[in-house]
Amino acid sequence: MLTFKKPEVEQFFKVFNIEDFTLSPDETQLVYSTNLTGFYNVWAMDLPNQYPYPLTFNNQSCHSLKYDPNGTYILASFDQDGNELTQFYALPTRGGELEDMRVVEEHRHMFPKFSKDGKRIYYTSTKGNKTYLNCYCYDLETKEERLLIEGEDASTYLIDVSADEESFITLKQFANTHTLAYLIHNGEAIRLTPETEKQHTVDSALFTDSSSIYLVTDYGEDNGYLAHFDVVTKKFTKVSDNDMHLGNIYLDKKGNQLYLVSSKGVEDKLYTYCLEKKEWNEVSIPVSIIDKLVIGKSGCVYLLGKTASKPANIYKMEGGSWEALTNNRVPAVGDEDLSEPEILSYQSFDGLEVEALFFRAKEEVSNGHVVLWPHGGPQASERKFFRSYFQFLVNRGYSIFAPNFRGSSNYGLAYMKMVEGDWGHGPRLDNIHGLEWLIENGYADRDKIFLMGGSYGGYMALLLHGRHPEYFKAVIDIFGVSNLFSFIDSVPDHWKPVMKQWVGDPVEDKERLTIDSPITYLDTMTKPMLIIQGANDPRVVKQESDQIVEALHAKGREVEYLVLDDEGHGFSKKENEIKVFSAILNFLEKHV
Amino acid sequence: MLTFKKPEVEQFFKVFNIEDFTLSPDETQLVYSTNLTGFYNVWAMDLPNQYPYPLTFNNQSCHSLKYDPNGTYILASFDQDGNELTQFYALPTRGGELEDMRVVEEHRHMFPKFSKDGKRIYYTSTKGNKTYLNCYCYDLETKEERLLIEGEDASTYLIDVSADEESFITLKQFANTHTLAYLIHNGEAIRLTPETEKQHTVDSALFTDSSSIYLVTDYGEDNGYLAHFDVVTKKFTKVSDNDMHLGNIYLDKKGNQLYLVSSKGVEDKLYTYCLEKKEWNEVSIPVSIIDKLVIGKSGCVYLLGKTASKPANIYKMEGGSWEALTNNRVPAVGDEDLSEPEILSYQSFDGLEVEALFFRAKEEVSNGHVVLWPHGGPQASERKFFRSYFQFLVNRGYSIFAPNFRGSSNYGLAYMKMVEGDWGHGPRLDNIHGLEWLIENGYADRDKIFLMGGSYGGYMALLLHGRHPEYFKAVIDIFGVSNLFSFIDSVPDHWKPVMKQWVGDPVEDKERLTIDSPITYLDTMTKPMLIIQGANDPRVVKQESDQIVEALHAKGREVEYLVLDDEGHGFSKKENEIKVFSAILNFLEKHV
Repeated sequence: MLTFKKPEVEQFFKVFNIEDFTLSPDETQLVYSTNLTGFYNVWAMDLPNQYPYPLTFNNQSCHSLKYDPNGTYILASFDQDGNELTQFYALPTRGGELEDMRVVEEHRHMFPKFSKDGKRIYYTSTKGNKTYLNCYCYDLETKEERLLIEGEDASTYLIDVSADEESFITLKQFANTHTLAYLIHNGEAIRLTPETEKQHTVDSALFTDSSSIYLVTDYGEDNGYLAHFDVVTKKFTKVSDNDMHLGNIYLDKKGNQLYLVSSKGVEDKLYTYCLEKKEWNEVSIPVSIIDKLVIGKSGCVYLLGKTASKPANIYKMEGGSWEALTNNRVPAVGDEDLSEPEILSYQSFDGLEVEALFFRAKEEVSNGHVVLWPHGGPQASERKFFRSYFQFLVNRGYSIFAPNFRGSSNYGLAYMKMVEGDWGHGPRLDNIHGLEWLIENGYADRDKIFLMGGSYGGYMALLLHGRHPEYFKAVIDIFGVSNLFSFIDSVPDHWKPVMKQWVGDPVEDKERLTIDSPITYLDTMTKPMLIIQGANDPRVVKQESDQIVEALHAKGREVEYLVLDDEGHGFSKKENEIKVFSAILNFLEKHV
Repeated sequence: MLTFKKPEVEQFFKVFNIEDFTLSPDETQLVYSTNLTGFYNVWAMDLPNQYPYPLTFNNQSCHSLKYDPNGTYILASFDQDGNELTQFYALPTRGGELEDMRVVEEHRHMFPKFSKDGKRIYYTSTKGNKTYLNCYCYDLETKEERLLIEGEDASTYLIDVSADEESFITLKQFANTHTLAYLIHNGEAIRLTPETEKQHTVDSALFTDSSSIYLVTDYGEDNGYLAHFDVVTKKFTKVSDNDMHLGNIYLDKKGNQLYLVSSKGVEDKLYTYCLEKKEWNEVSIPVSIIDKLVIGKSGCVYLLGKTASKPANIYKMEGGSWEALTNNRVPAVGDEDLSEPEILSYQSFDGLEVEALFFRAKEEVSNGHVVLWPHGGPQASERKFFRSYFQFLVNRGYSIFAPNFRGSSNYGLAYMKMVEGDWGHGPRLDNIHGLEWLIENGYADRDKIFLMGGSYGGYMALLLHGRHPEYFKAVIDIFGVSNLFSFIDSVPDHWKPVMKQWVGDPVEDKERLTIDSPITYLDTMTKPMLIIQGANDPRVVKQESDQIVEALHAKGREVEYLVLDDEGHGFSKKENEIKVFSAILNFLEKHV
């Protein structure tokens, strides 16, 4: 009798996200950061009741939430409008004004950890050591702070503290593909993985007790596996097979087991490893991608995760079955109008196998156009997580092609390393070969291709535009790097030690960096462009976008430039997100 | 170790309200209007999950929500920014764009009722009959509308439709204290209460089947009781005692019983009446005030209600115990900082017993000042429901005195009638005698009294100011009537038939209306004033405030005037509410 209109574009952006969550020690209060009101704030629910109530009103993204072990307050980390200079505050459990805990405005505070009694916090900071970072211990009773570990050689992060606070685990990041973990005890640093010349990574490590460390590493292998380090004998032992692609590791004290996330390719799996019986079990999960687990004292598992068609939600596992605690979804849009991607695989120019996601517009709405989306990172990957703008573009008739070109994470260490020192050649050709494969196989029409990317993906969009303009009708760059020289110069100080291996050296690699910098190809960037930038972005600074916009304008090219004054490297405010993607849709529709 | 600041004033206004709710026929979706984002929108939860998701984004108050009996959509009523010209829309169950159902912009549509099969809606409207109203039947399949009942003599509302749609119950409102219900069948109107010269009211009435009507009336008594009307024999029978002070009545088909709300004085009780066994039972409730009940097909009871210290929440009763489905509270404020009122009782000038609420500021914060709050209506009462501004004023050290002066509802018909034709004498002196009682009994200090009221309470604030300025340090009027002559002239058309009995006749009662009009006392309105008005208010129009502000400004008096452009007779937008009560606090603090 009644007919309803099709969902509007805006509906796709009226989706709430969840950034982080924590749980009171007695598991009666779940505290999380969500943008329910269009801005991020911290909210809570009194379990088993799932109705949310607000704790903060500061309208800022929250970078981490940790419940005090005594259950008396929440340690919450906020930056200001995306500047990533994260400060620590104490938030009353019933909400209200934030109290400063560790606040030094020009510095970034990271990875807070409580002592067992809650009287001290351990954390990593740029304070006193902008490049390599320092680890501190702050005493909440005496208000005294102690420098615990001084970073040197590489950015140094404190990742675990033993229960007796006598031992620590640090992680040194020489590169994204070269991270080493150390046991720090009595001023001595003992490496957790055996000596080798070969670069490898430690993804995570934790004390199961004072004499035992479990870690995930790819030492001697291509993929992450579980290993054990005996604190007494200093013996490193491989525990799991290397084909599990393990990543994050969580301790379930009650069950005397570890939960491990396996992140192979485009989706995650979850496993338990029983510390006593040494047995593995796969745990079925209600999502494709796990963002975070919290294991309660009760042994219940709380999981934050997503699928390609379902946004971030928190689930609770009790007695083997999952219950959704939140219920975020795309309003007004039915499941039948949301897209789950196909997984494609193709060979690149040199025979390398590349996996890709393809979100196909339904026949009845398709406009025949494909948007190439090179992901950011570049040592990250496009996976089965929820992106509002993918869903809304697909709903409006655009198909999306997102290849996990060489350098992407989750395909092994060697694959990830392939982008290091080669930002602009191999990955670029992987994108182009992907397009050719699509055209050959009937997925795309040569004359109907758009290009859009953010961060490294923005860089790739600019570079592909400059070097292969014939493929694209129009190009969208979201806070992309335009000039590798100025980029290397302008990243945060603690990124600098990894830049040489990751990108290159401005002097030694001058020729290659010139060849791989989009700004070299201004003459051939002839297609209409839309460039989007957050004014506070500390990773890809505004100057990266300013310079290419100026240069292209000087040549009389058609370039729209949208700057968000209160955003950094992402869009934290719903209104900005809607503004950006409305501009993107308008731009695409104009050039379709 | 950590100390937290006391709650800010703003926290008290970051409280969410719930306007109305409905339930899908299978009781798996609860749909309700709340201002979770600062604006009212319709939200839903998928029971038993209690996490809310939004259905609308129009940022408007919702006046009623009714789930289609087939479960396919929700009938939602919205006006525009408080203008009270309510329109009917169809809202998809998963949210999205509203579809017009019954929309005529200059008219008000009220009390929609579905036919059992959901194919027709019955409703009351100002359309075609601005003064007495018409009742219509709209066929959703044929899109044809039929005039069902034409209002005459008094505003006529359709309040129930029999299952076979052959019989109807209407209510004619001659005055707030004179409402008569009729059975409409085959074009004939049969009064449900026996003939009498004495005015009385019918509060509610419904068909339990086609031959049986239950109603709550005070016919022949002073308080509402349950009565039965036999459709076949036309016999009226008193069912309950008259000391129950009954009000709303709800049918539980599954349990073959009625739920009845008893509203004596300042709080509600809930009873069941078994239709077969004729037995009464009291049901314990988790609130002081019941706003609405929905009885599911399953027999579960869903209740929207409040206490003085806990805002609107929805509860579900299953197997005799209540579970909160929502969890609205005052953020950042503990129960120990929220105030439950004392119930006072005093004799007025003529010996009449008056009940009042007294919210006492805690000793450690008290500034010794009392705010006199004459409630609106006037045929309403101040009860144990939640008011953000009471809680925040008490938190800031002000005590609040809210007397249920003569004319208030919930104290019997005779008491309620005492304000009719006497807006300005008895009720005014009840307020003054209340103050004297407070002073005598140590509740208030003669030199530390403020005055604040809204609507009729704003009128009373103006009048008390003009006639008893010596009592008050400063006065706040929120959309109050300043001039009874212009008020009588400017109310909505369908209010006009009751104005003579309620307020008076501008010609016959000219002298009294002059004596009772605040504007008569401009000379003695010498205390500082704050006047607040919504530009779209259709009940007390802006001219009521404009005229007194102009007149007082002309006399050089200190009058602050705050007009809200996008509000009516109330504050529907959180931002406006905060603005208004911040202004009120500033004003009080200035004059404390």
